[in-house]
Amino acid sequence: MNKCIRVFAPATVANMACGFDVMGFAINKPGDELIVTTANEPGVRITKITGDEGKLPLEPALNTAGKPILSMVKKFRIKCGVEIEINKNMPLGSGLGSSAASAVAAVYALNALFELKLSKDELLNFALEGEQLSSGTVHADNVAPCLYGGIVLIRSNKPLDIIALKVPDKLYCTVIHPQIVIPTKDSRRILPAEIPLSSAVTQWGNIAALVAGIMKSDYDLIGRSLQDVVIEPVRSQLIPGFSEMKKAAIDNGALGCSISGSGPSLFALSKGEKTASRVGEAMQKCLIKYNLQSELYVSKVNKNGPEILKDR
Amino acid sequence: MNKCIRVFAPATVANMACGFDVMGFAINKPGDELIVTTANEPGVRITKITGDEGKLPLEPALNTAGKPILSMVKKFRIKCGVEIEINKNMPLGSGLGSSAASAVAAVYALNALFELKLSKDELLNFALEGEQLSSGTVHADNVAPCLYGGIVLIRSNKPLDIIALKVPDKLYCTVIHPQIVIPTKDSRRILPAEIPLSSAVTQWGNIAALVAGIMKSDYDLIGRSLQDVVIEPVRSQLIPGFSEMKKAAIDNGALGCSISGSGPSLFALSKGEKTASRVGEAMQKCLIKYNLQSELYVSKVNKNGPEILKDR
Repeated sequence: MNKCIRVFAPATVANMACGFDVMGFAINKPGDELIVTTANEPGVRITKITGDEGKLPLEPALNTAGKPILSMVKKFRIKCGVEIEINKNMPLGSGLGSSAASAVAAVYALNALFELKLSKDELLNFALEGEQLSSGTVHADNVAPCLYGGIVLIRSNKPLDIIALKVPDKLYCTVIHPQIVIPTKDSRRILPAEIPLSSAVTQWGNIAALVAGIMKSDYDLIGRSLQDVVIEPVRSQLIPGFSEMKKAAIDNGALGCSISGSGPSLFALSKGEKTASRVGEAMQKCLIKYNLQSELYVSKVNKNGPEILKDR
Repeated sequence: MNKCIRVFAPATVANMACGFDVMGFAINKPGDELIVTTANEPGVRITKITGDEGKLPLEPALNTAGKPILSMVKKFRIKCGVEIEINKNMPLGSGLGSSAASAVAAVYALNALFELKLSKDELLNFALEGEQLSSGTVHADNVAPCLYGGIVLIRSNKPLDIIALKVPDKLYCTVIHPQIVIPTKDSRRILPAEIPLSSAVTQWGNIAALVAGIMKSDYDLIGRSLQDVVIEPVRSQLIPGFSEMKKAAIDNGALGCSISGSGPSLFALSKGEKTASRVGEAMQKCLIKYNLQSELYVSKVNKNGPEILKDR
């Protein structure tokens, strides 16, 4: 009899203002859902993808969920077939770690389905193979928080050195995704190759203090530290209404607000759900004059990473 | 009857490898000692300075201990005279926060002597006046750890935002001061105005992880994070034998080793006193072939800042 598993993996916010390329966190909403089924006929097949507007490849070797599964099937000599259904429940290219979520859901599902008993550390490397397909480089700042949950620090990508940070209980995240497309390569290309030492010092003072604020659950300190003087001033120019949305977030009580990953989504952190919701409404209003549709998500920081869903 | 107080203030290690301009910590040895006495004749006088080889000014307005005392006497309308004896128990221009120690000892002594009941936050601004005399800029990375004790993060100098970090219990510091002179302005001048973004990212990954390591008392993580890819490669060229000393420190079990402040002193952090002592001996040996004398200090991280000493 064939077995089936359904897995959710959360969206992630990489960079976290001052933590470009070294920090990220998972959120409870949105997230991707994968259904992985064993099959009699050997081989890995992607049977269906929903929510991608036909943009994602069905060929497993080219798909962020398929690639890590192919590797695991080979490595662990899985003889039976594996069929994958991918439900993209979040916008593609939004800066919310969509490809990381699919890759993480895939490795987590396969691990459970075949009772491989791999640790998250072991799963991470397989998931990164999928992420690499999509971004071209090995950056763990979406995959790691998606897999481990919580707020994650990536001290180094090579060798991988990942540190989980305690999540303050009342930390809520507002995410707004304006419906525009910024190709990731554009948002990388506009970054400066060199930055003033003085800006770098400001940035590392803030990231150091942000880690301290998170670990102490000191919300004020988190707020004072959520400043990005290096990346945000450049990338925000690609996002219509960025300044107004950020101002609206702060004016409505957010601790801080910046770009999620390489954008165009923005995130804001708040103490408490009520503030986070108010912040979201205020931010969304700013986009009206730009005639931009947007999706709004308000949720707690996700502490667990992927999870197995019960049958529908 | 005139009153007298004797105060010790600790040496400090600023920068802490990856924390250029934003981090510092106090050590139990060495440190400065000030004796402050009330006098019938009004005015502030420095009556004696020992250990400075005649280099420090006796004129209070030009002296790092005298200047903050002048300000406090004026601000708090102290009518009687104040006489200061300064015993410099650490080398000048060594990168160990010598001027900060004198300034902190001065404000701490005056606060106690006249029962001003000022908080450390209030004392900090007076002490910074003294430090500014010596360095020309307001940097709190020696004054703050000297005054508060422990490991201190300076998120921002303007406005001042200082965060005290928990000190891991077994953290010992080895400091070696090679007897050479590097003018502070030289060690500032050779710093690059701009740095590669990739180096900045490496640096802020390390400082973020160092804070996490300190707060978790995770000695291995502290060790992995004590890396400076921005400042040390430049400044270490001014210190004969730097590479050998650093290698000797690591080979003998130190968690990490870098330049203290702007040098020429080096510091190493170790888990436990025994390792810290072995590290110090190994580092000192490296200087023999350079015909350089050196001072060696091994002590715990200082947790208290300045203290009032009992009568001799």
